[in-house]
Amino acid sequence: MTEGMIYLDNAATTFPKAEEVYKAMDMANRNLAVNAGRGSYQLAREANKLIDDTKELLLRLVNAPNQARVVFTPSVTIALNEILNGIRFEKNDVVYVSPYEHNAVARTLRLIKKKRNIKIIEMPLNPDTLEIDIEKLKYQFSKDRPTCVCSTHVSNVTGYILPVQDIFQLAKDYNAITVMDAAQSTGCIDINASTLEADFVAFAGHKTLYGPFGIAGFIDVNQIELDEYIVGGTGSDSLNLDMPEFSPNKYETASSNIVAIAGLKVALEGFQSHMATDIEKKLTEYTIGKLKNITGIQLYLPKNLELHVSIVSFNIEGYKSEDVGMILDQDYGIAVRTGYHCAAYIHKHLKDEEFLGTIRIGIGKFNTIDEIDKLVSAISEIAMG
Amino acid sequence: MTEGMIYLDNAATTFPKAEEVYKAMDMANRNLAVNAGRGSYQLAREANKLIDDTKELLLRLVNAPNQARVVFTPSVTIALNEILNGIRFEKNDVVYVSPYEHNAVARTLRLIKKKRNIKIIEMPLNPDTLEIDIEKLKYQFSKDRPTCVCSTHVSNVTGYILPVQDIFQLAKDYNAITVMDAAQSTGCIDINASTLEADFVAFAGHKTLYGPFGIAGFIDVNQIELDEYIVGGTGSDSLNLDMPEFSPNKYETASSNIVAIAGLKVALEGFQSHMATDIEKKLTEYTIGKLKNITGIQLYLPKNLELHVSIVSFNIEGYKSEDVGMILDQDYGIAVRTGYHCAAYIHKHLKDEEFLGTIRIGIGKFNTIDEIDKLVSAISEIAMG
Repeated sequence: MTEGMIYLDNAATTFPKAEEVYKAMDMANRNLAVNAGRGSYQLAREANKLIDDTKELLLRLVNAPNQARVVFTPSVTIALNEILNGIRFEKNDVVYVSPYEHNAVARTLRLIKKKRNIKIIEMPLNPDTLEIDIEKLKYQFSKDRPTCVCSTHVSNVTGYILPVQDIFQLAKDYNAITVMDAAQSTGCIDINASTLEADFVAFAGHKTLYGPFGIAGFIDVNQIELDEYIVGGTGSDSLNLDMPEFSPNKYETASSNIVAIAGLKVALEGFQSHMATDIEKKLTEYTIGKLKNITGIQLYLPKNLELHVSIVSFNIEGYKSEDVGMILDQDYGIAVRTGYHCAAYIHKHLKDEEFLGTIRIGIGKFNTIDEIDKLVSAISEIAMG
Repeated sequence: MTEGMIYLDNAATTFPKAEEVYKAMDMANRNLAVNAGRGSYQLAREANKLIDDTKELLLRLVNAPNQARVVFTPSVTIALNEILNGIRFEKNDVVYVSPYEHNAVARTLRLIKKKRNIKIIEMPLNPDTLEIDIEKLKYQFSKDRPTCVCSTHVSNVTGYILPVQDIFQLAKDYNAITVMDAAQSTGCIDINASTLEADFVAFAGHKTLYGPFGIAGFIDVNQIELDEYIVGGTGSDSLNLDMPEFSPNKYETASSNIVAIAGLKVALEGFQSHMATDIEKKLTEYTIGKLKNITGIQLYLPKNLELHVSIVSFNIEGYKSEDVGMILDQDYGIAVRTGYHCAAYIHKHLKDEEFLGTIRIGIGKFNTIDEIDKLVSAISEIAMG
């Protein structure tokens, strides 16, 4: 890491990770990086056990019901591609999305719309609170019955925690398939897959789980069967040109990334005693409190700050977001992210296009009050011109 | 690694890697594991440069022409899914495959056939030599004109080096799109992408390139445009619900696995002075020479051993392949792979079904003559009963 750099791009990827994660990955690289599940030798069986144990930790973390399975994929984007393209959509089926969806959902649905002519409807947002309007949504569902409802758990742009339980419960009144993108929440805020009414919960190893790149996936909560989308070797039933019939094998192709899984396992073990929320929530509140006092700052937050975590998006009057990012980097050694954050829908609601998006602070559990103070001081200086 | 284990499953994944690969990955994990290409800060730019440099090494390794681009994907399976599903097949289009294709190609084409009703034809194999019959293929092409021709470079079952140059040149007489699966060859045998007539060359980082899991991709040699298949965030043009228009950005979604790329880069630097062939070819020849002398062994090899590298498949009369694998593991500490090796087509030609597939030795550059001697001695004992 660049000496003295302050890293505040944790919403893109958390950095650094715990020392144990690095050690576990190096250890796996040197001692266990074989082809799990395909070889009939001791080491391959050990690799297999590591995978099973890691999945067990994930199931426990989200309090998954008995029938749930974990499907590992190399990225949460691929998980969402497999889920959404696997759903047997027919012409005129109605898919609801939150206005906070990441492009892993938005672009995937757009592609499905081109192929199958589905209808995509954005859930209503209250422009004053920037929160989902559940009453309006209820009405909309009754008018255009949902086939599928996709909601991100936490917005990667504003840190808003969406009312996913309410949304999915409404959706289930219509037997809709429910998909939650938990890339920005798993391990950071509680998920109870047994009561949530989400059929699929997609997660990313390298974000709020504080694991490495290269491992992600989804909790296949109710084993609703998906059509094949990404296919290939599974190490089993090799003479059959169809994929294996059952979850998770049906959705897991190619060699398992045992090195990344070893890192994720250790990261997950760190979550067994406490959730990260405590640290991240306090730092986030502190950041908002300080930024609010600076003249010329526009913050993009839900009205109810109880529904918010980890991410603070803002702009400084008179500056394009990317210019602020550059100044923070070059003059202050502070790394943030600027622009549209791979989320296409939400910016018309934030009305941030004159700034070319937002400046986004992604707060991680390794950040400190002192770092936030330095950020706030830098922002003050820039805002004063 | 289990003390004293002899690892001969290098065709599944090479193991171990060079010490420098482990070090580079640990270093990247600790110092560079941020979101390349999306942040506007110094570290993100460094990560970007690492990616560009690694791609440059790959282009040089395969002597790619100027217009070629490298597309990174998390696995070669995903690369092949993106390529094949991206080709604009129409009903009754004819796709030729070699009988040696991996299920990453075979299952993918089977799925495309279900959706678009294409015709899949296996290239003719000479049953006596287990080699492609080029003369017959020429005739077949004239009868059923190819739209697309897929050939693996090296069989992951028998180690046969296919006559890819001849195949693709014939294919180009019909302007067919040509796809080479180089998972078992890149870095092990020469590839000249400037003269090969392959439009797409798919590679895996963790096999013959001696890099890590989690990084693979394809050389997009001629920039033939593919339809979108796996879509999501690209860190650019985020307000656009379509993917960026040009290669490689159109095909690269999600955060780059900078840790795996750092490992691959170092692995590639090791190839600049010599190809691995020297070591692997000698060890392979030595293995075949020894195994041939054992009574009751059936070897599955191309007749011309010049067309062969790294992989030796065989069976022992009276044993299921998996039983031999188990004995080798438990009594001798030797790790091999047994079964059908995720390759559906070829076994009817090998006629190995009474053995439930083959015992496969995958030879890597870290294996030694001494290890092969121990394997041969173990096989002799098993064969004698």
